[in-house]
Amino acid sequence: MTQELAIDTNRVVDLLCSFLRSEIENAGKRRLIVGLSGGLDSAVSAFLAQRALGKDGVVAVIMPYRESSPASLSDARQVVDVLGIESVLVEISPLVDSYFANFPDADRVRRGNAMARARMIVLYDQSVVHDALVLGTGNKTERLLGYTTLWGDMACAVNPLGNLYKTQVRQLANALGVPDSIVDKPPSADLWDGQTDEGELGFAYADVDRLLYYMIDKGCEQQRLEELDFSRDFIERIRQRIRATEFKRRMPRIAEIDGPCAPP
Amino acid sequence: MTQELAIDTNRVVDLLCSFLRSEIENAGKRRLIVGLSGGLDSAVSAFLAQRALGKDGVVAVIMPYRESSPASLSDARQVVDVLGIESVLVEISPLVDSYFANFPDADRVRRGNAMARARMIVLYDQSVVHDALVLGTGNKTERLLGYTTLWGDMACAVNPLGNLYKTQVRQLANALGVPDSIVDKPPSADLWDGQTDEGELGFAYADVDRLLYYMIDKGCEQQRLEELDFSRDFIERIRQRIRATEFKRRMPRIAEIDGPCAPP
Repeated sequence: MTQELAIDTNRVVDLLCSFLRSEIENAGKRRLIVGLSGGLDSAVSAFLAQRALGKDGVVAVIMPYRESSPASLSDARQVVDVLGIESVLVEISPLVDSYFANFPDADRVRRGNAMARARMIVLYDQSVVHDALVLGTGNKTERLLGYTTLWGDMACAVNPLGNLYKTQVRQLANALGVPDSIVDKPPSADLWDGQTDEGELGFAYADVDRLLYYMIDKGCEQQRLEELDFSRDFIERIRQRIRATEFKRRMPRIAEIDGPCAPP
Repeated sequence: MTQELAIDTNRVVDLLCSFLRSEIENAGKRRLIVGLSGGLDSAVSAFLAQRALGKDGVVAVIMPYRESSPASLSDARQVVDVLGIESVLVEISPLVDSYFANFPDADRVRRGNAMARARMIVLYDQSVVHDALVLGTGNKTERLLGYTTLWGDMACAVNPLGNLYKTQVRQLANALGVPDSIVDKPPSADLWDGQTDEGELGFAYADVDRLLYYMIDKGCEQQRLEELDFSRDFIERIRQRIRATEFKRRMPRIAEIDGPCAPP
């Protein structure tokens, strides 16, 4: 991790816990519900929620698909055990497979998106049962790169990590005591066997986080970015990704009726 | 319908068709894909899309649940036939039922929300197959009242009807030549047998549309609304509904990191 991205973890943890408590209070709810994948972001989100609301204020939902890695399941279970929170296990395979029985040739990207959305269905349904707000787990890196499923993993009520880069979420994880097995493994959406974020994206989080920091937070111009040792090609690829995924970060476009509606 | 809500249908149809063409062009797509429920809003959306892009520019997806009314299915099929557009039929029952097999006591509201979200999954998956943008069908009345499923029926890329009240969508339907059987039947989400919008909401679209027009579009104060013959109780109920459903009209709340992130 580079120096630019170092965070004061005490301050950030306090701030995020206040945020979660205030959102819960405004919504008139008692609990947060979080989908635990076994990965870093959802583990950190659960740790924050438990610190903000206590263990009775958090419910975890574990939603494996039949091809999900067994290590993901045991990592998710470990988070539940360490935090002492209630958990629900729902297999999404029947849900996803019954749909793709109609389209057996669907590729893994289509299947992966349907999995992310099926998990949203389960999480929102369970939020009603547990009178809870859905806790989002997306970070700033994946938000900006659009490395998410629209109306899937980013669908939530409140998102504590959305303004922190992946490398910053990792610092939080260490500060919060997230188990090493989760902190140390390569990030993956675990939507198919052997998938890793960095393999699929084609670059490392350490590099893209540093570029995004200078490009977005510091608003640096092209020349300055090149002086900071980012290649022209890399800069261009990231700019294009940000532009092309703008639709994932906003509500649907609604036609405006500009001018009088009434008949002449 | 009251005079206040009368629209110049020619002008509005032209404006909405331009909107759809421009959105399609900006997105670099060729087609719109729309979920046809057999109801008014999705029929009007499909008619607009066909007028904007021609029949080859529209794909309909019909997604009945096993308890959906057979009349809904035949009305949806009639839209496909009249417009001469391509259509895909996908039953959502296996998808929805396989999930609720885990929770057999789930009530009809939970089931209805899962159906709306299951349809979103199908529509988005089929949008990839057909290289299409997802066409939203929500109107202004249901948006303001939050009479929608979050990340379900309102999830789309572009929404032509979101700034028109239900009674105005009906005027468009007549102008566009939507079949009478669709225009004349009582509006219903058809999520369970005998459901009607007005029965579930507890008031008529004609009344609430007129109130919303004066409350939202004209920004009238309480006293003026009462002079216009709306009861205090009705006004208060609608105000509360609008406030309580604000979260359905915005993106998730993301924590802001105000102040320095760096360690001291």
